Amino acid sequence: MKKLILTAFSLATAFVAHAQLQPTKQTPESSELWTPVPRLVTPGKPSAVGSGFTAPSDAIVLFDGKNLDSWVSGNEGGGPAPWTVADGALTCAPKKGDIVTKQSFSDYQLHIEWRAPAKVDGNGQGRGNSGIFMQGIYELQVLDSYNNPTYVNGQAGSIYKQTMPLVNPVVGPGEWQTYDVVYTAPHFNKDGQMVIPPYITVLLNGVLVQNHTAIQGTTPYVGQPMITPHGPGPIKLQDHNNTTSFRNVWIREI
Amino acid sequence: MKKLILTAFSLATAFVAHAQLQPTKQTPESSELWTPVPRLVTPGKPSAVGSGFTAPSDAIVLFDGKNLDSWVSGNEGGGPAPWTVADGALTCAPKKGDIVTKQSFSDYQLHIEWRAPAKVDGNGQGRGNSGIFMQGIYELQVLDSYNNPTYVNGQAGSIYKQTMPLVNPVVGPGEWQTYDVVYTAPHFNKDGQMVIPPYITVLLNGVLVQNHTAIQGTTPYVGQPMITPHGPGPIKLQDHNNTTSFRNVWIREI
Amino acid sequence: MKKLILTAFSLATAFVAHAQLQPTKQTPESSELWTPVPRLVTPGKPSAVGSGFTAPSDAIVLFDGKNLDSWVSGNEGGGPAPWTVADGALTCAPKKGDIVTKQSFSDYQLHIEWRAPAKVDGNGQGRGNSGIFMQGIYELQVLDSYNNPTYVNGQAGSIYKQTMPLVNPVVGPGEWQTYDVVYTAPHFNKDGQMVIPPYITVLLNGVLVQNHTAIQGTTPYVGQPMITPHGPGPIKLQDHNNTTSFRNVWIREI
Amino acid sequence: MKKLILTAFSLATAFVAHAQLQPTKQTPESSELWTPVPRLVTPGKPSAVGSGFTAPSDAIVLFDGKNLDSWVSGNEGGGPAPWTVADGALTCAPKKGDIVTKQSFSDYQLHIEWRAPAKVDGNGQGRGNSGIFMQGIYELQVLDSYNNPTYVNGQAGSIYKQTMPLVNPVVGPGEWQTYDVVYTAPHFNKDGQMVIPPYITVLLNGVLVQNHTAIQGTTPYVGQPMITPHGPGPIKLQDHNNTTSFRNVWIREI
Repeated sequence: MKKLILTAFSLATAFVAHAQLQPTKQTPESSELWTPVPRLVTPGKPSAVGSGFTAPSDAIVLFDGKNLDSWVSGNEGGGPAPWTVADGALTCAPKKGDIVTKQSFSDYQLHIEWRAPAKVDGNGQGRGNSGIFMQGIYELQVLDSYNNPTYVNGQAGSIYKQTMPLVNPVVGPGEWQTYDVVYTAPHFNKDGQMVIPPYITVLLNGVLVQNHTAIQGTTPYVGQPMITPHGPGPIKLQDHNNTTSFRNVWIREI
Repeated sequence: MKKLILTAFSLATAFVAHAQLQPTKQTPESSELWTPVPRLVTPGKPSAVGSGFTAPSDAIVLFDGKNLDSWVSGNEGGGPAPWTVADGALTCAPKKGDIVTKQSFSDYQLHIEWRAPAKVDGNGQGRGNSGIFMQGIYELQVLDSYNNPTYVNGQAGSIYKQTMPLVNPVVGPGEWQTYDVVYTAPHFNKDGQMVIPPYITVLLNGVLVQNHTAIQGTTPYVGQPMITPHGPGPIKLQDHNNTTSFRNVWIREI
Repeated sequence: MKKLILTAFSLATAFVAHAQLQPTKQTPESSELWTPVPRLVTPGKPSAVGSGFTAPSDAIVLFDGKNLDSWVSGNEGGGPAPWTVADGALTCAPKKGDIVTKQSFSDYQLHIEWRAPAKVDGNGQGRGNSGIFMQGIYELQVLDSYNNPTYVNGQAGSIYKQTMPLVNPVVGPGEWQTYDVVYTAPHFNKDGQMVIPPYITVLLNGVLVQNHTAIQGTTPYVGQPMITPHGPGPIKLQDHNNTTSFRNVWIREI
Repeated sequence: MKKLILTAFSLATAFVAHAQLQPTKQTPESSELWTPVPRLVTPGKPSAVGSGFTAPSDAIVLFDGKNLDSWVSGNEGGGPAPWTVADGALTCAPKKGDIVTKQSFSDYQLHIEWRAPAKVDGNGQGRGNSGIFMQGIYELQVLDSYNNPTYVNGQAGSIYKQTMPLVNPVVGPGEWQTYDVVYTAPHFNKDGQMVIPPYITVLLNGVLVQNHTAIQGTTPYVGQPMITPHGPGPIKLQDHNNTTSFRNVWIREI
């Protein structure tokens, strides 16, 4: 430790030739902080069915492989979530519409696993297309991007129609893939302008694809990102007419 | 999709009463981007020995359980890394000094697993203490923080003597724990001031403990964070006189 | 314009050798956005008495040179602000205590001018010391830092006891100086942890001294930055026992 | 000061009921930092001809009202800057092409004043159109946006075709307006991806219009923002076929 201090000191003095020395005494205790004490969380275990971890103790489990109790239809009028549950997975029922969580969220860590259909049918945006919408509005794209060229701000790991992923770490159709997401909500002012944008960090299959990316606004299929003031919002999963599946879905408010 | 657009539109118009409509035509293609194409990366598999993932295809494996070929002594004069390798783990040899990677890094994703000794001996900063230094300078604390009160900016998951973790998701002594780190290097100007600080995001056992935290400077045991200009630097593991172990260590430049 | 596009395109294709071309048509209109329309603000004029600008049309004038109507005492029990107003300036009445605005704020742009006493009396922290506290808690230091060595995280332009200024652009004692501040409030979670820290950008006499600096917590004279959850807070001016003056104070919520 | 500490302490303890007290002693000196000492800069004076400040002592004056010595033509082949200098102002010579600084920059503070023609001719993008390009690539829009509706990501204060200004604080045609800009350069990786985007903060006539805005890529008239790796770049002023003028142009590397 002594050595470290000397090294840092030498570097600093080499750089700033006439730097002044601090005339006063420091103790180890003088940079200690004792409150607030971070809350205890029991982490999950390596997932038996999935990649990554199971839900930690403070997570809200949004899908545990058994039922759709945490979800409703995203169609006007709501109603029960019209997707199917089988073999521990939740699968899109094409043309039945999106599904959204009953609960709304602002700042969170989200874990979700997804799988494009094993049988490849179509290409580009037609293969295993779905999406995970932050606060119901900002889409993290889900797509079978394995040997499947499309526009790069529309491939898996992209913030749809905005920011491409840093790399493409997908696995093949029929294989489970994981998203680990850290998201903080935007803050709007009275004018409806974004004073702080949403920021998102994403690992896809454990590989960084978005690092503190500022989301520009909504992620429409047609048009530019829109600035649309809102409060807490649900997680939305998109029906894009493909039988894309999800499992091991949990969220922690941060 | 049509519905989404209408909803966003309704919100926007409700908010800005006299907003103008865009007089021109948008097509889906008009917000597509086709270059550069993100590089392919084959992700790792769920780790057999550890938690989380094995190294993806573009990672540099810093410790694969077999040898210390990627490391040297951090003592003045360097030389072979003096820690021990057994049972797939790398363990600190107390009083032999720190070890550092041969390679230097700037912006990266780091995966590293660590284990405090199963036999609890001591308390506070004396239990399973070690540290993982970003660029050899900025310490992500390693400590057996299971039922072990200490100053909060010195517990596991903290940026040492700076920023406490958001929560405490540690497991018990003798159990393996994982860090997944995203780090971007600081940028200094000619005066030696930080124009952009280092930013770090950390998951501990899959749970977010640091989110885009700005590192203030060095992390000394005694004294304030120092601003010390530097270029790329190694990963350093600290000898803090405890037999803390590490395994499954890999890094990806981002 | 055509040339720019070609240049950008050449660079991109040179870099990513096998990049794909976008097969579809873009029009100028396809990247236009028409709502929300930014609100009109009439800017101030170059200040007759001060440096920089007078208050724009949407600012709240906190001190216009005439009275202390926008301020109260920061002492327990409150009461009228005990500082003096003369010659268009507001001056600290030593030992009478701090003053705070009646209104509270979260995200804002603040303009404030200050002047250390012309007669130099004392040194270091004893010369023209005061402070401007964001949300009543986070201190932007005010000090006569003209040929006056002190600790660098305590000189004018510093976030007190945290972050030194990038440079030292002060003018001499008795001269008016300006701060232009952009500040966004922290966001806390239920645990009392900061999910988003306060960020501050500061120009001192028109020269950048803090650029999107993350504030670590409170700025005590003794001890480490504390994480202390709070809502909107006032601007506080510190009584540090010096007759430091202020004028042309306005704030805009952003 | 004692009171402040007690207050902060009360808040913290009220929040975290069983928080532990720090058992050790802090002194005022323990949070002081003495190096590096911020470099001295003599700030400018309130500008006689313009708004805001004249150049501080460490600025590079890019236009002082007299000549175009710091500029060259942006046309292929370069050559002398083909714009006109009269009455202390620099005015675009329509159809002669853009002009760029001889020097290149990365991280900086830029002050520049501009004026749309007093005689209004045309509307929308046709009124007083020009642009100030960061590193020659990222456009901060210049436009006579006084009672002149156009797309909001194309009005004065916008990052062109990306981010609208927070408010519209322009003055009328024929009046001088000021931009104060803080800009940090993007960082690219070997793949040509942006690891850190450019960030920009802009005051227009002293009013905040962009706050730490992440720039998404290039700002083309047609098409999406492109990710185009580059090093330091010049300031570029755009010939958009209008006789827009500039004056009091200076830049400081930060």
